[in-house]
Amino acid sequence: METLVAVGGGAAGMSASSRARRLKPDMEIVVFESTKMVSHAPCGIPYFVEGLFNDENLFMTYTPQFFEEKRKIHVKTNTKVTEIDFDSRIVYGESREGKIKAEYDYLVISTGAIPRKIPVEDGNDRIFYAHHPANAVELRERLWSLNTIAIVGGGILGIEMAEALTHIGKKVILIHRSKYLLNKTIDTELGNIITQRVSKDAEVRLNESVETIKEGGRLIVTDKGKYQVDGTIIAIGVAPNVELVKDKIKLGETGAIKVDDHMRTNYREVYSAGDNTESVNIITKKPAWVPFAPVANKMGYVAGSNIGGHEMRFPGVVNTQITKYKEFYIGRVGLQEDEARLHGFKPISATISGKTRARYYPDAKDIHVKIIADENTKRILGAQIVGGEEVLGRIDMMAAAIMKGFTIEDTFFIEMGYLPAISRVWDPVIVAIRQLMKDE
Amino acid sequence: METLVAVGGGAAGMSASSRARRLKPDMEIVVFESTKMVSHAPCGIPYFVEGLFNDENLFMTYTPQFFEEKRKIHVKTNTKVTEIDFDSRIVYGESREGKIKAEYDYLVISTGAIPRKIPVEDGNDRIFYAHHPANAVELRERLWSLNTIAIVGGGILGIEMAEALTHIGKKVILIHRSKYLLNKTIDTELGNIITQRVSKDAEVRLNESVETIKEGGRLIVTDKGKYQVDGTIIAIGVAPNVELVKDKIKLGETGAIKVDDHMRTNYREVYSAGDNTESVNIITKKPAWVPFAPVANKMGYVAGSNIGGHEMRFPGVVNTQITKYKEFYIGRVGLQEDEARLHGFKPISATISGKTRARYYPDAKDIHVKIIADENTKRILGAQIVGGEEVLGRIDMMAAAIMKGFTIEDTFFIEMGYLPAISRVWDPVIVAIRQLMKDE
Repeated sequence: METLVAVGGGAAGMSASSRARRLKPDMEIVVFESTKMVSHAPCGIPYFVEGLFNDENLFMTYTPQFFEEKRKIHVKTNTKVTEIDFDSRIVYGESREGKIKAEYDYLVISTGAIPRKIPVEDGNDRIFYAHHPANAVELRERLWSLNTIAIVGGGILGIEMAEALTHIGKKVILIHRSKYLLNKTIDTELGNIITQRVSKDAEVRLNESVETIKEGGRLIVTDKGKYQVDGTIIAIGVAPNVELVKDKIKLGETGAIKVDDHMRTNYREVYSAGDNTESVNIITKKPAWVPFAPVANKMGYVAGSNIGGHEMRFPGVVNTQITKYKEFYIGRVGLQEDEARLHGFKPISATISGKTRARYYPDAKDIHVKIIADENTKRILGAQIVGGEEVLGRIDMMAAAIMKGFTIEDTFFIEMGYLPAISRVWDPVIVAIRQLMKDE
Repeated sequence: METLVAVGGGAAGMSASSRARRLKPDMEIVVFESTKMVSHAPCGIPYFVEGLFNDENLFMTYTPQFFEEKRKIHVKTNTKVTEIDFDSRIVYGESREGKIKAEYDYLVISTGAIPRKIPVEDGNDRIFYAHHPANAVELRERLWSLNTIAIVGGGILGIEMAEALTHIGKKVILIHRSKYLLNKTIDTELGNIITQRVSKDAEVRLNESVETIKEGGRLIVTDKGKYQVDGTIIAIGVAPNVELVKDKIKLGETGAIKVDDHMRTNYREVYSAGDNTESVNIITKKPAWVPFAPVANKMGYVAGSNIGGHEMRFPGVVNTQITKYKEFYIGRVGLQEDEARLHGFKPISATISGKTRARYYPDAKDIHVKIIADENTKRILGAQIVGGEEVLGRIDMMAAAIMKGFTIEDTFFIEMGYLPAISRVWDPVIVAIRQLMKDE
């Protein structure tokens, strides 16, 4: 009987296992997961900290019991894989019950990502990472006991934690290296809007680099000053978790595991999927690394399909990102303008501000749209939206457009729906597109 | 000097004129509009009746003064065109000041649509059409003075008027010919959800045809019974308004004016755009007629571009529709399942019910998604969504997908964003798509 082993029970590992199970009902499938949770994703941690829900089991899409009973997938939680012998096809590990060993015919590496760290001095008992839901209960208890909290890093996690903590009345100091928040998600025009908004609730320190953190997390030393706080959240991004395999498996230039479009590594029977795995950017055709749950799930689905004997190719990524801060939703897809230039495109862009509803319909929200296209080919390269409602769907639409190489004019002709209660007859996206068409 | 004349100052006429003006700054441009309003659309009438706004000028995107002053477009309101001499290129009409006559080099016919009617006996003083914003003030005054109101027709306008009238406490009897409401927008599975919802507020009579209306609108006689009401709204759809030109200009099989992809009629210098104009369905490649404001605007834009010397082609329509009823948004794009069969496709479909937010995020709404694809080519043929939030954007995304011939698998790989506050890691659309992929 064939055996599939997955190392890591997050989104990608469980998605791969579930898909393989559907296609091969008799396969032996074992998932090793180092924490107590499976099919988990960190996206919910800020909302847990905010107090929007209290049951940590809700972090899991399905429980280990569900996978065991409904899908006959053996889930070994609290089991850390310590070594993989790729030549003999054996996984070694440790659980509470002792050492484990498992042979495989197919392997899925789905070890996810780990938070990037900052040099610290004098311990780390007040340094926090909002990374794994298995630690969310303790994280929340600790954070709730503090008054002034520093967040290092003004990316997606940083502003989501700022939203959560200011909402529950904490004093937040947000220290960010760049000149505006979310600079790896959106460009200056829209980033400034969010930076101003966050600054109403939190002390935002821009253009400032943390040099070290002392007193276990209570003293932050930057290139511009010192901050005395009760605790510090590090939110400077994540890195592919490849420690276990990095000397044995081929990595890509992003540092994540290199795979072909079947999600196969340099070992034919070894697949990799999720936040530890490199992909290809559909626009630039260059290696890309997009550590978000929907991509992880689909990578897992593709790996599981191929293991299950149904050939499937992963087409690459367009780097869709979406977050929110209080009344604003913030989304992007494709390349930012500088990124586009860096990749040899000649970007042109239009940024417009509008409203989300017909001029006569009450409670319209502000919406800001930036569209980036290539001057030579007229292809859409990127879209960024900050607004009060219906941001996600517009970003999703632009994701579809960018994936298939829509031009400016193609996008103009997308037959977007019009309902006065929720949109404008000339949709803000189309208004931006029209600006790009103006001089034609 | 060249002269452009537009007959009809709605969305299409003003869009064509504005685009031509931008491209030809010196052109003489005159718009004849039979009512007092321009760049109007009827979409807002139900909300005006509901009392969500009170200023009728808000129906206009821009006022006649704006066009006159900012765009140097001569807008002649309250001016009815009575005849067009296509050989001599002269438009004749009547205004309050007397007869008018205008020669043209280019003509845009943008006469819009008119409501379909029902045979009546004994006058029509209590029969209402919620069609033109120029009559909205009077319409609202009349409706507000009545208690029990019948609506004939359970399409988009019918349910929007039902929403408005039940919201302000009127007793509504909604009489519909088909077995569920919105049957020309969505299929049975989703249509039943809306039908049940509307039935909570209004008396919904299905499978019932109106034979005549008597007593000026106070007695409705159907094939199943009689209803005594205070007034009747007719909402059984619209027809292309081609009375003025039908004997002189080539019409298409839908009854609307036939144009090429430049929006040109059988006269080289005569264009047609908007609800009076036929288009092509991108999926079936057959003639189609989609009388909605965004399409009208884009048709006008294309006509104006071509008149202005910038060649542009209208790619056709995918029939995007969106409406709402109380807490539900209702959208569709592409073909319904029966429509697909009728056009020679072999439709397969998946209908799923889900939630709009991560399982741990509060206040998730219900959402129901139906996706239709062709079994042979795997192309997506249609999408229908009924749900509590973010319906429009998903429909817009599917509009983009359908326009460019996305397959089931292409759609699976659209990198939809995931934010727990407003979506699911496996988006409901992707869940439906996965069902369609299941047996592959």
